[in-house]
Amino acid sequence: MAGGGQERGAEGWRARYYRIIFEADTPAGKAFDVILIAAILLSILTVMLESITTVRERHGELLRVAEWAFTILFTIEYALRLMCTERPLRYARSFFGLVDLLSIIPTYASVLVPGAQALLVIRTLRILRVFRVLKLAHYVRESETLLRALVASRRKISVFIFAVFTLVVVFGSLMYLIEGPDSGFTSIPRGVYWAVVTLTTVGYGDIAPQTNLGQAVAAVIMVLGYGIIAVPTGIITAELTQGGDRSLSARACRSCDATRHDADALHCKRCGARLT
Amino acid sequence: MAGGGQERGAEGWRARYYRIIFEADTPAGKAFDVILIAAILLSILTVMLESITTVRERHGELLRVAEWAFTILFTIEYALRLMCTERPLRYARSFFGLVDLLSIIPTYASVLVPGAQALLVIRTLRILRVFRVLKLAHYVRESETLLRALVASRRKISVFIFAVFTLVVVFGSLMYLIEGPDSGFTSIPRGVYWAVVTLTTVGYGDIAPQTNLGQAVAAVIMVLGYGIIAVPTGIITAELTQGGDRSLSARACRSCDATRHDADALHCKRCGARLT
Amino acid sequence: MAGGGQERGAEGWRARYYRIIFEADTPAGKAFDVILIAAILLSILTVMLESITTVRERHGELLRVAEWAFTILFTIEYALRLMCTERPLRYARSFFGLVDLLSIIPTYASVLVPGAQALLVIRTLRILRVFRVLKLAHYVRESETLLRALVASRRKISVFIFAVFTLVVVFGSLMYLIEGPDSGFTSIPRGVYWAVVTLTTVGYGDIAPQTNLGQAVAAVIMVLGYGIIAVPTGIITAELTQGGDRSLSARACRSCDATRHDADALHCKRCGARLT
Amino acid sequence: MAGGGQERGAEGWRARYYRIIFEADTPAGKAFDVILIAAILLSILTVMLESITTVRERHGELLRVAEWAFTILFTIEYALRLMCTERPLRYARSFFGLVDLLSIIPTYASVLVPGAQALLVIRTLRILRVFRVLKLAHYVRESETLLRALVASRRKISVFIFAVFTLVVVFGSLMYLIEGPDSGFTSIPRGVYWAVVTLTTVGYGDIAPQTNLGQAVAAVIMVLGYGIIAVPTGIITAELTQGGDRSLSARACRSCDATRHDADALHCKRCGARLT
Repeated sequence: MAGGGQERGAEGWRARYYRIIFEADTPAGKAFDVILIAAILLSILTVMLESITTVRERHGELLRVAEWAFTILFTIEYALRLMCTERPLRYARSFFGLVDLLSIIPTYASVLVPGAQALLVIRTLRILRVFRVLKLAHYVRESETLLRALVASRRKISVFIFAVFTLVVVFGSLMYLIEGPDSGFTSIPRGVYWAVVTLTTVGYGDIAPQTNLGQAVAAVIMVLGYGIIAVPTGIITAELTQGGDRSLSARACRSCDATRHDADALHCKRCGARLT
Repeated sequence: MAGGGQERGAEGWRARYYRIIFEADTPAGKAFDVILIAAILLSILTVMLESITTVRERHGELLRVAEWAFTILFTIEYALRLMCTERPLRYARSFFGLVDLLSIIPTYASVLVPGAQALLVIRTLRILRVFRVLKLAHYVRESETLLRALVASRRKISVFIFAVFTLVVVFGSLMYLIEGPDSGFTSIPRGVYWAVVTLTTVGYGDIAPQTNLGQAVAAVIMVLGYGIIAVPTGIITAELTQGGDRSLSARACRSCDATRHDADALHCKRCGARLT
Repeated sequence: MAGGGQERGAEGWRARYYRIIFEADTPAGKAFDVILIAAILLSILTVMLESITTVRERHGELLRVAEWAFTILFTIEYALRLMCTERPLRYARSFFGLVDLLSIIPTYASVLVPGAQALLVIRTLRILRVFRVLKLAHYVRESETLLRALVASRRKISVFIFAVFTLVVVFGSLMYLIEGPDSGFTSIPRGVYWAVVTLTTVGYGDIAPQTNLGQAVAAVIMVLGYGIIAVPTGIITAELTQGGDRSLSARACRSCDATRHDADALHCKRCGARLT
Repeated sequence: MAGGGQERGAEGWRARYYRIIFEADTPAGKAFDVILIAAILLSILTVMLESITTVRERHGELLRVAEWAFTILFTIEYALRLMCTERPLRYARSFFGLVDLLSIIPTYASVLVPGAQALLVIRTLRILRVFRVLKLAHYVRESETLLRALVASRRKISVFIFAVFTLVVVFGSLMYLIEGPDSGFTSIPRGVYWAVVTLTTVGYGDIAPQTNLGQAVAAVIMVLGYGIIAVPTGIITAELTQGGDRSLSARACRSCDATRHDADALHCKRCGARLT
């Protein structure tokens, strides 16, 4: 009996914390999420500032303290998450579980291995938690619309990405043959890198064709890259546009001949007669 | 009586000037706006010309005179605006009020503090007044269509911008780790800057990855940046396309609480009751 | 009588040549256009080749001959055009008339003024004649669809271009203040040029911000430029998409309730009953 | 009789292999395709690795062996294809037949002519075979939708590409005149190359305008390039969006010659006569 009560107590404790830490539909849960996001953003800011030489030299001590403070905070959070979930291993193995763990290890590791702190940049991945907090807001529906459009067009996008992949491999190899190492095309992978830089219209200019033939071929890949951006744009747009339209039914009202009723309409929107 | 007449006279004077200066539906108001815009554009041209070393050396005297002329003109305009509006403080605190004030201060300040004139570039912000003049023309409806599309898709755009923000932070940090300071990735903020330059396909080339791994990661972010431009395009296009269709009204049916009726619906589409 | 006959003969001669040279609906007219385009393209190729130092040094003599041949040919064409049109002055003053004249003058001028030949590049403008030849083909309807979409959205595009203009002036001035001449921002016009290069995502890299604040502001304008490309795309797409749809009428057939008839349909496409 | 049986045997052998090698609707055919693609990708990887100096120096021997192995494998495949098709010449002359042949020749040629191996990059073209394998999957319909959209808008795209071609020739020549050889505009073709780099928003920065006038003209072509990307995007999007609607049939009414009927129309929309 006592054991059962204790168990229930433990269960209640666990469930309560689970609600706060993993869910977001209670005031406490929302508050926890907001504080966590703030802590994550501040910790990322700390990591960023520390990477700047002049700032590190001047405020190194302060940043070190902040780093340890955030690390201890995130360690406690990690421990709480492990304790209050029913399947700790599942959480530990999940993407967010791994990110949470990897974002605290470097600070501890730096005690043993100097320089391990550099890996703290992994902590920037924790910014992805913000997407979970977005669930709080009205942004869900909008995100879902975008995601649905992306998912619905995943095959068209795959075909497109594969076509892009083929283009950069073929054109990259071609330019390696035409230009040679003097213009910076030292190997085929380098040529493929150049082709990506050019096709996506980024155009660093660190590698650029020098020969006439090379520049002519480059012009072709530029126009191609300029033009085929239209394809993914068209795909996503078509998906987003048809997303909202699909619910117009073709039914006409028998009483007043009105058309363009919504798919879920039961009555005519003009005269109120029942639609068949 | 005399006081009342004086007041009415003052009121009439104020109201008349208010109409000319703040509104644009009278011939005098339109003329004032056109002259003001011309003066603003000319004053900006003066500031621009003065920033060119060779022009300043040759025509410095003339430009100085023009600068003082425009400053005095704008000071009179600012004083008139303050005087003829009923709530001068509200205007003074508004965005345009601040811009108007800030665009005359530097010239006066330059008497006391040499070099304060550099701040005259704030005057370029006055160009935004043109948007008010656009109201005169048939451009209103077009601007409104564009603005409505932008406003209607503000949440989708927020989600998109946040996704872009996350991508550049994560990729920028990653490249800082991979490339190090030798390739110009001297700090994480610099890495993030590079990621913005690359993701938006601007590609200056002042910072560019040198290692094989760095170039491979860069290729990924390029293809991402090349592809995800399709998302905002799709959002805006879908919004503009459905602009005509999007006549969903905010009314709810009194009988059954159903919402999302068409703007032209007379009866509830679910229960057939008359909508109010 | 004889004079009348002579006049008719002259008229007939003129009209016949007018048909061949200015119109394109007869076999002779088509042949003339095709030969003219070929001559224009070849003459442009000649000008291009002559601009390359190594080619000029080796085949200078040949290119000079070709240049004179094309010039004489185009002079004859110009004379014919002047003679066979009823209003020679109107043609001479038209855009194509001016281009035709300007593309033959430099060669003659080079006899008197050495180096005047450089102006032969004006001849490349004659390439625009190809658009007239396009009228021959099935491309008219497609070109018209594109043109109609552009014309229909000219106001939205104007608002957009003006917004871009404002952005580059404001941001260009701002960067001039922030960066100063050390980073290449030597004057406000130069800053505006940089802003155009960046906003349009071209990104040469000849002028690039060096300070932290400058790079932060640059990142903002990059994301803006990356995002607002969606606006003209959305405008054109909406116009092109609705171009074909607009003709669907909302009428339903009284006999069979079929809907989605074309706007110009007189009979039901399903049952053949007359539409009201 | 024996000869006939032998012939049938040969026929059966041929048809069986043809099914496996050229078709993909049997398990054996699918397996062959998957193995072939794997071999192609590995052989391309080998060529790529060999092009990197450091890798070639360290693992040159191994890569040489792999190269010969793939060459022998592809030679057997080529021989099999020639043998089992009924019209070997037609295959040998087809695009894929030529690519297959060209991708094995360089290795053999390298025995006689040192350095001929460089041509092995032609082998990357074999990656195009993947598109044939895509037929296996559900990707066909998606690819077809994309292809149909591209084909349907081929004329609009031609008009667009020709307009781009005209723009780069005219602007390239103009910039050659304005900038001259000092800024890198050494010839008109080089100017046209710069115009392509700029209009497509690639922007290497290896050639960039230095004069004020040149930069002003460059700003115009940048805004043009930034804006007209909207045109192909609009074309493809409109095509993809209307993909479902575009059911216009090519039938003409026998009674009144009216055309442009919907694909599902049973009666002429103008005169009501039954369509055949």
